[in-house]
Amino acid sequence: MAESKEKHESGLLAPTSYDKEPPRDPSLIINSKTPFNAEPPVGALAQSFITPTPHFYKRNHGPIPILENEEEYRLTIDGLLPHPIKLTLAQLKSLGKEVVVASLMCAGNRRTEMSRLKAVRGVGWGPAAVGNAVWGGVPLSRVLQLAGVSQGAWETHSGGRHVEFVSVDRCKEEKGGPYRASIPLHMATCPDQEVLLAYEMNGEPLPRDHGCPLRAVVPGVIGARSVKWLDRINILADECQGFFQQLDYKMFPPWVDWDNVNWSSRSSIQDFPVQLAVCSPTSKDSIAPGSKVTVKGYALSGGGRKIERVDVSVDGGATWAEAQRLPQEGTHGRWAWTLWSLSAIVNPPCQIIAKCVDVASNTQPERVETIWNLRGVLNNSWFRVDIEPPKARL
Amino acid sequence: MAESKEKHESGLLAPTSYDKEPPRDPSLIINSKTPFNAEPPVGALAQSFITPTPHFYKRNHGPIPILENEEEYRLTIDGLLPHPIKLTLAQLKSLGKEVVVASLMCAGNRRTEMSRLKAVRGVGWGPAAVGNAVWGGVPLSRVLQLAGVSQGAWETHSGGRHVEFVSVDRCKEEKGGPYRASIPLHMATCPDQEVLLAYEMNGEPLPRDHGCPLRAVVPGVIGARSVKWLDRINILADECQGFFQQLDYKMFPPWVDWDNVNWSSRSSIQDFPVQLAVCSPTSKDSIAPGSKVTVKGYALSGGGRKIERVDVSVDGGATWAEAQRLPQEGTHGRWAWTLWSLSAIVNPPCQIIAKCVDVASNTQPERVETIWNLRGVLNNSWFRVDIEPPKARL
Ligand SMILES: [Mo]
Ligand SMILES: [Mo]
Repeated sequence: MAESKEKHESGLLAPTSYDKEPPRDPSLIINSKTPFNAEPPVGALAQSFITPTPHFYKRNHGPIPILENEEEYRLTIDGLLPHPIKLTLAQLKSLGKEVVVASLMCAGNRRTEMSRLKAVRGVGWGPAAVGNAVWGGVPLSRVLQLAGVSQGAWETHSGGRHVEFVSVDRCKEEKGGPYRASIPLHMATCPDQEVLLAYEMNGEPLPRDHGCPLRAVVPGVIGARSVKWLDRINILADECQGFFQQLDYKMFPPWVDWDNVNWSSRSSIQDFPVQLAVCSPTSKDSIAPGSKVTVKGYALSGGGRKIERVDVSVDGGATWAEAQRLPQEGTHGRWAWTLWSLSAIVNPPCQIIAKCVDVASNTQPERVETIWNLRGVLNNSWFRVDIEPPKARL
Repeated sequence: MAESKEKHESGLLAPTSYDKEPPRDPSLIINSKTPFNAEPPVGALAQSFITPTPHFYKRNHGPIPILENEEEYRLTIDGLLPHPIKLTLAQLKSLGKEVVVASLMCAGNRRTEMSRLKAVRGVGWGPAAVGNAVWGGVPLSRVLQLAGVSQGAWETHSGGRHVEFVSVDRCKEEKGGPYRASIPLHMATCPDQEVLLAYEMNGEPLPRDHGCPLRAVVPGVIGARSVKWLDRINILADECQGFFQQLDYKMFPPWVDWDNVNWSSRSSIQDFPVQLAVCSPTSKDSIAPGSKVTVKGYALSGGGRKIERVDVSVDGGATWAEAQRLPQEGTHGRWAWTLWSLSAIVNPPCQIIAKCVDVASNTQPERVETIWNLRGVLNNSWFRVDIEPPKARL
């Protein structure tokens, strides 16, 4: 494909090959190399409230786009709104920077646990396709005001009810077209939702793997809607009709499989349920009976719902204790995960189980069987870690 | 007690005895007579999207207050806000009526199912302590603006962060004082939350059992915060310190009991988890094997989260089918329950099981054991109905 076709309206280039990928941290566990999908070792996650950028999971659908000249970048906002606009990065930055501490989680996080029960399709994520970062950027509600859409609007005068984010990357699922996804208009216009057009991650300009120079960050919603490498934003009457909105990221019941799936029967996922993982110890750690261990992990819920309680058992569910939740930071603590820990005496062989409750008293399902779904999304079943004692020396 | 002490600032009278109770529908199932706590037969609930007022559950903590003269009524709004105000009913009505279709559910709904496992304290509610009504009134956000509090505010300039609703009824739990409860300030100031000061229910002036002449209606939150017979509203720095906010309506884990409960360790419940009941058939209906039955029920979730799917099994969980959700009504369908139905051939003896999923993919817990709590609140475990065949004639 000619170089000229690689360049999009925004000035972003969409490479057709994987020979210009950015450098990545060698500790990442690679689930797929092209496109690059990787997560950190789960033990790294519980080490800091803010996930260092190199350890933040990378979720891609094609070669990483390139911006050769930041000054050339233009974001187009168009569709069912009063004043279509085009903005440079400098113009976006002049609108005032806001900082939001928010976790992003791939809907496929913990998919491999689900596929152990029965095969599912999708990237084989462990429990570390989640991270918590400080995002800097301009509130989308403020940018939409510039384009004539009122704060808090549920619908534009011309009938716009959805905000579509369009990227430039070449996705196999879109037959080589770009990744795109939408959120309801009200989520974008409501200042409390704190949807950002982000140009910074953890205080640095957005790295290439995370959407350089501009991405959506939609707090409280599955990562799939926080579109990277933004080319344009369209205000639409209906939801985005792209693959990732219509033929993926939907929640089916366990009895629906590939031979009887009807994608149009279900809503696209936005908000997500209460979720948790034990980051340490892992099943690779052999522990001597009677040892005191610190069980550590993360917990989060969608929609700005905080974590109310984390329950841990080190004896397979016979007895339970409440873990300590580490102090939260960020806007009303709504969008960030909660790290937690509990010291306990363990007697392997044993199973550590952890589960949590959010402020709405939502609970995690006890058995993955009850939420198995063909795409393996949103596995939030109780987290179980089998711990063995050290092998006897022969 | 002298008549003069019965009359509150608002003009409402708080009787000390139960000899002036309003008339009630004879079909109600009475869980407690004084105070009057009653719910309809569960089969009545699935008959209409809007619950007729006579069938709407009645939840009281003392004798029903009396307003002798509507023109005497005054609502006081005071505390940490710029302009304390007093408003007559006529003044409140002149601010413009809004109508909100919202379900209210007692946090104790389905408590008796939980107490079958192990005793809990509280009114013995079945699965009908819930109803869906059309509420008419003035948005609280609009009234607070009159008092100098900005729309969308999280805090007032003088540090107010909570809105306390104070009633006039005499509650044993408050040592004869009135029922009171609070919600976060932002919930009250955010127009999207649609918190109402309601003076109408289903198109009629608020009946005495439901808070005549004025009550709070807080959509998406447990019924306990929708305080009836409003005497005053206080803007506070901290949550309401009353019994029902601090020593009740909190979610404890199953291993906490009355001998080790620490009320200050937990948040007060506002938002609630995904919930469902089968309204028909009930375990009292004996059904011949091979009969076609229509399984009907309601489903709802807190926080404005819609119901995404209802799953029904008529063979104890061996096979499942999706129920049909009836069309929703009201503001973006957010605050009202979803009625559902499914036709199925049943072969008693059998167990009907129903469970649902909300838009955030939150699920109901499979076993009540995992959410048992000493106060028996928010039992949202899978709903099970044992159906027997007709007894053989001897
Ligand atoms: Mo994802
Ligand atoms: Mo209640």
